[in-house]
Amino acid sequence: MAPSSERRTAQLEKHIAPQACASYANPVGQKPATVQAMQDERDRANFEVQKLTYVLEGGKKAADQKQKMMLELERDVTFRMYDIHDLTKDELRYRTMEKFHNILHHLSNESVAIFKQRLAIVSLIDPGFWTRFGVHFGLFFGALQGSATSGQFAYWASKGAVSLNGMIGCFAMTELGHGSNVAALETTATFDAAADQFIIHTPTITATKWWIGGAAHTATHAVVFAQLIVNGKKYGVKSFVVPLRDPKTYTLLPGINIGDIGKKMGRDGIDNGWITVTNVRIPRAYMLMKHTKVSRQGEVKEPPLQQLTYGALLQGRTAMVVDSGNVAKKALTIAIRYAAVRRQFSSSNSANGLETKLLDYPIHQRRLMPLLAQAFAMHFTGMEMQKMYDQMMERLDSASPGDADMEEVLEALKETHGTSAGLKAFCTWNCLNTIEQCRQACGGHGYSAYTGLAGMYNDFAVQCTWEGDNTILTLQSGRYLISCYREACAIRDNAKKSGKPGKKMAPGVGYLNHMDELLGAKCNGRPVHDLAVIAEAWDSVSTFFVKRAGEAVDECLRNGQDLDVALEECSQHRLYASKIHSFGYLTHRFIDGVNTAKSSPDSTPAIQNILLQLAQLYGLYTIEENAGAFLQCGYFSPSEMDQVRTNVTRLCKTVRDQAIPLVDAFAYSDYIINSPLGRADGNVYEHYYAQIKRANPPQEHPYFHKLIKPLLEREVLDNDDEEAGLEDEDEDEDEE
Amino acid sequence: MAPSSERRTAQLEKHIAPQACASYANPVGQKPATVQAMQDERDRANFEVQKLTYVLEGGKKAADQKQKMMLELERDVTFRMYDIHDLTKDELRYRTMEKFHNILHHLSNESVAIFKQRLAIVSLIDPGFWTRFGVHFGLFFGALQGSATSGQFAYWASKGAVSLNGMIGCFAMTELGHGSNVAALETTATFDAAADQFIIHTPTITATKWWIGGAAHTATHAVVFAQLIVNGKKYGVKSFVVPLRDPKTYTLLPGINIGDIGKKMGRDGIDNGWITVTNVRIPRAYMLMKHTKVSRQGEVKEPPLQQLTYGALLQGRTAMVVDSGNVAKKALTIAIRYAAVRRQFSSSNSANGLETKLLDYPIHQRRLMPLLAQAFAMHFTGMEMQKMYDQMMERLDSASPGDADMEEVLEALKETHGTSAGLKAFCTWNCLNTIEQCRQACGGHGYSAYTGLAGMYNDFAVQCTWEGDNTILTLQSGRYLISCYREACAIRDNAKKSGKPGKKMAPGVGYLNHMDELLGAKCNGRPVHDLAVIAEAWDSVSTFFVKRAGEAVDECLRNGQDLDVALEECSQHRLYASKIHSFGYLTHRFIDGVNTAKSSPDSTPAIQNILLQLAQLYGLYTIEENAGAFLQCGYFSPSEMDQVRTNVTRLCKTVRDQAIPLVDAFAYSDYIINSPLGRADGNVYEHYYAQIKRANPPQEHPYFHKLIKPLLEREVLDNDDEEAGLEDEDEDEDEE
Repeated sequence: MAPSSERRTAQLEKHIAPQACASYANPVGQKPATVQAMQDERDRANFEVQKLTYVLEGGKKAADQKQKMMLELERDVTFRMYDIHDLTKDELRYRTMEKFHNILHHLSNESVAIFKQRLAIVSLIDPGFWTRFGVHFGLFFGALQGSATSGQFAYWASKGAVSLNGMIGCFAMTELGHGSNVAALETTATFDAAADQFIIHTPTITATKWWIGGAAHTATHAVVFAQLIVNGKKYGVKSFVVPLRDPKTYTLLPGINIGDIGKKMGRDGIDNGWITVTNVRIPRAYMLMKHTKVSRQGEVKEPPLQQLTYGALLQGRTAMVVDSGNVAKKALTIAIRYAAVRRQFSSSNSANGLETKLLDYPIHQRRLMPLLAQAFAMHFTGMEMQKMYDQMMERLDSASPGDADMEEVLEALKETHGTSAGLKAFCTWNCLNTIEQCRQACGGHGYSAYTGLAGMYNDFAVQCTWEGDNTILTLQSGRYLISCYREACAIRDNAKKSGKPGKKMAPGVGYLNHMDELLGAKCNGRPVHDLAVIAEAWDSVSTFFVKRAGEAVDECLRNGQDLDVALEECSQHRLYASKIHSFGYLTHRFIDGVNTAKSSPDSTPAIQNILLQLAQLYGLYTIEENAGAFLQCGYFSPSEMDQVRTNVTRLCKTVRDQAIPLVDAFAYSDYIINSPLGRADGNVYEHYYAQIKRANPPQEHPYFHKLIKPLLEREVLDNDDEEAGLEDEDEDEDEE
Repeated sequence: MAPSSERRTAQLEKHIAPQACASYANPVGQKPATVQAMQDERDRANFEVQKLTYVLEGGKKAADQKQKMMLELERDVTFRMYDIHDLTKDELRYRTMEKFHNILHHLSNESVAIFKQRLAIVSLIDPGFWTRFGVHFGLFFGALQGSATSGQFAYWASKGAVSLNGMIGCFAMTELGHGSNVAALETTATFDAAADQFIIHTPTITATKWWIGGAAHTATHAVVFAQLIVNGKKYGVKSFVVPLRDPKTYTLLPGINIGDIGKKMGRDGIDNGWITVTNVRIPRAYMLMKHTKVSRQGEVKEPPLQQLTYGALLQGRTAMVVDSGNVAKKALTIAIRYAAVRRQFSSSNSANGLETKLLDYPIHQRRLMPLLAQAFAMHFTGMEMQKMYDQMMERLDSASPGDADMEEVLEALKETHGTSAGLKAFCTWNCLNTIEQCRQACGGHGYSAYTGLAGMYNDFAVQCTWEGDNTILTLQSGRYLISCYREACAIRDNAKKSGKPGKKMAPGVGYLNHMDELLGAKCNGRPVHDLAVIAEAWDSVSTFFVKRAGEAVDECLRNGQDLDVALEECSQHRLYASKIHSFGYLTHRFIDGVNTAKSSPDSTPAIQNILLQLAQLYGLYTIEENAGAFLQCGYFSPSEMDQVRTNVTRLCKTVRDQAIPLVDAFAYSDYIINSPLGRADGNVYEHYYAQIKRANPPQEHPYFHKLIKPLLEREVLDNDDEEAGLEDEDEDEDEE
């Protein structure tokens, strides 16, 4: 600090400085009460916290790897997070760009699999950077991997597309007028055979490429989605590499115009922009031709199996399912740790004279414990979704049209497509809701930027609408379920006819193999908290509402509507069926997780027990939340539904006792949590106060002389001024 | 603009300017398609839009008054809103303070009632200013009105408390460690009889006054809530005027330390701060003594009826119920207008080749139409709540202990207290959810700051936790309902014994007068959309769950728990009963509104018809959402519940046809809406594009040379560098 600046600060402190809170410190040697409260919670642990971490992360090695990465990020000065809440949009973008250099160092020194784990951690602390880097690494580079021929891929790699030496890419798909309906994008790519070039063009205002991450300040090149037109014929949307800027000067190239999309709800570290392309010519070879090819002569060769091109698009959805679980865990760590040390209102049975911990209130347990159970359900579901995606991509990468197992590959693709659509929507909604519930559970302090949940909400909210709007994806999932239902009906009918068992439905919709039994199934007085009952209940109700949706569509078809119209008319049925199915899907993945944990080398009976209780809580809480569905299909009677409620309350109390050990097992460091309310040591007030003071140091009043002094000292109009010298005749008369 | 700056901008525009979208303009004389689409919607109106506005606002005069105020605000340059999304926190605070002068001009030139209407409009466009001004006008000045003797009031008025000549007040109630539990605040006010002074003191870190609006930069004085201690005896929390700053210099007074709370989720125009008070002496007369009095000799005289002091605290809650309806209307205007012009995906039955309007999708109708109906329900509920509060305050102001009708006054207070608690929570939750649903219904564009819904969410979110945390208020409401239930039981039992009809319960819980009939009531095949059926259904289910909550508490009492513990144990029952009751309460207020509209001079059969349909939609949609409750109590059978669903879908379609005329009837000007997506003319794309461009003008790249160029042109370590001259022996061997 320069001397003059030091002097000025000292002066300021003398006059208007808030004093440090030294005088409030605890007597020497005495822990703050909140620290003691947190310790008390940890003393209650009835399972081995670190071992649960190993169970969740797939072993000690993976868990240690994560800790190592967290430490590396924490020590990386470009990734400092303590001051992030006070950066303006422009500062945030600068800071975000600063991080590229260091993250690229890791990219070139570790495997892609390990690097992706690193990015998953980055997404927890800085979703804006994750997006900005992901625009190149996931979207642009992903498009090259998915749509370039091997020769094209090698060419762009040699230009720097891997290492960002010489180029940075962005992904120009959506337009002002088109998001979900990619097929109707307006940008054109017209083949000029004479020049062997494509002419890329933005024909209307609504065709402007919009929301393009990295466009405003970062990218040199874009993968542009445009309608391929050859000899006047339209061939649908294909992708083209379009250079945007001179990499030496960042001057926009002729015909390219780019503007900044500006301020957003969150993720301001990413520089979204709009792009218009005005009759820009690119070589024919800049069209990515792994699938559709355009020859020198203008012959268009389309791929035999269009579906095979879709696989890579599911990567983002899969990542969001995993991210939803992780972000929910972070939010819950904050709200639950705060609830374990925050006291409010004394209760008549408090022995020590202290007020009651929020976590000891039955209603607070009801607010947070089901969400904690849900975070575990999302954890196991994310693992399963990732596995399904990886396996599908492995098969897809090695598949080629005509392969003997092509039908199975397409089945796997269909399953991954339908499942990821439903889960992306369901889990991002769950997570957004979890963040907001956690924020509100922190009371007034949840509204402070520094306690972390407000920003988390704003950053996460976009996940409900990008890469497939959640409602549209849920409807897609509903459509998939209806088609599964029809298939299951056909299999059943064939099996009846032929007397031979038919093929089995994919595991996720495996309940449809037993639909007839499930439709009549009832709890019939068995204990409602039995996992077998819970699983059967969800299978039964899922069958009931998927069948309903299918029948509603059938009825529309019988009334002469075509399939598309029928599906639209029945969209509420589809949406509902998909939601019910998703609850059941997560319940099953949780139960699978409980079973798999039994064979984990790190597992113990105590761990299996708490996981079992969490799975029961998740299953019963979601049944309670969907009571109408269960009473309607008749699986539970009204009095059994009362037992469900009683059990939820009971399990909330049980899980509450282990709540701190459970969030400790998520193993996020204080750096990752980045909230004084969520500090591991429980010392929330001192750290909150300190953070507020550091972020808002004393300063000269910014506008007292300009705005406040004139206000306080203004002259208020008095009666003399009102008259302003006018002799009012009426008044004169009155005065006479 | 200075010449040099002009030159620079011109240069910039030459080199990197995005071109204006003139080239995209529609051919001369042709309307943009979205404008035509909006006109088409208006042509569908089957009722007189302006007359519905009059019905809603209570006549032409009141409606015109509102339009006049909107215009005045729109023309007031300090209230300009187009650039608000890009202001930093510090700029926003400056801008917010700028508005004080002009708003005070209105305060001194119109009645308080009219001025409050003006503030209600201000809260729609600038909630941050509304809060900052409200801290003085509502909280500080309100505390003087409610707690100062008439002499004290006159004294502070003479110091400038009304006109802000010489002083600005803030309201220092909450502390770092205490929000909801006001009784446990730690700040002390110890009477020093010798000096005839109080010593105000912050004893601990958690006693720091926290979240105090206006403290950081605005206020000269605070009303401080502190524990009154006289002669070593504690008398509970009372309020004291404490001077904070020298009004001439804004230097903090000795013993006062204030810091800035800094960045929040929203409402950054208000300068929340923290305050510590270290042994600060104030004259005895600075204690506000309308209720509790401390004499020169240190005698403490407490008020005979403590409850009478609570009335004013309900003002904020009442305002929030009204605000919830208004903000929901604003959010819905944006989402519904956008849905009426946004097209996505073509449908097979689209005749004109255009894609389908979002509003024509059954699922989009399902997303927005029930929320539109709910906004009407909140509108009528807000009017009723305001009336109840005004009437109660009128009685309270004129009441004094010993009055003959004191019991009735206390009844009215109890009713207003219980009702406002439940409705504040229910309506702010509804509104926050409406904003988020509207934001998501705008797809990706809902994430842009400029489309307005993101900021609306962030500004509104605080209403769920301040002035009574929503969960705690809902539990209070549940407690009120249980006490009403007991009272109703007693009245019924007495009536049976005496043979004479007992007194009636307050209208809001009037269903409890008929609880025995209601508990067995069933729909029994009557049309589910009949308002009488809907009303009875809600009465029946409310009785069912209020009774359950009461019985659950009784059971705990029988088991030997004391009342407080029993109430905590049954908090989930209380919460649920209160929610169900609130749905029913809104349904009744809506039905009342439909009936009252019949006698409005501005009403017509067409208006009565659309209001009827909206009320049916609200009633049935909320029944559908709470299907579990209705199936559990047995009012509807499963097949009747299916009819409810079918009717909701049908009514969504019906209301969709009038959706634009209905939001037009809310009569918010484009200035108030402040979102290009919600423009009245439907010209969304051009205005959205123009706003993005205006807010983000072309500029020199902010960090290309510093961050990007070095990244793109860095040397990547090659193999030579890796070896760094070391002759590796193993490698040598291999080479041999």
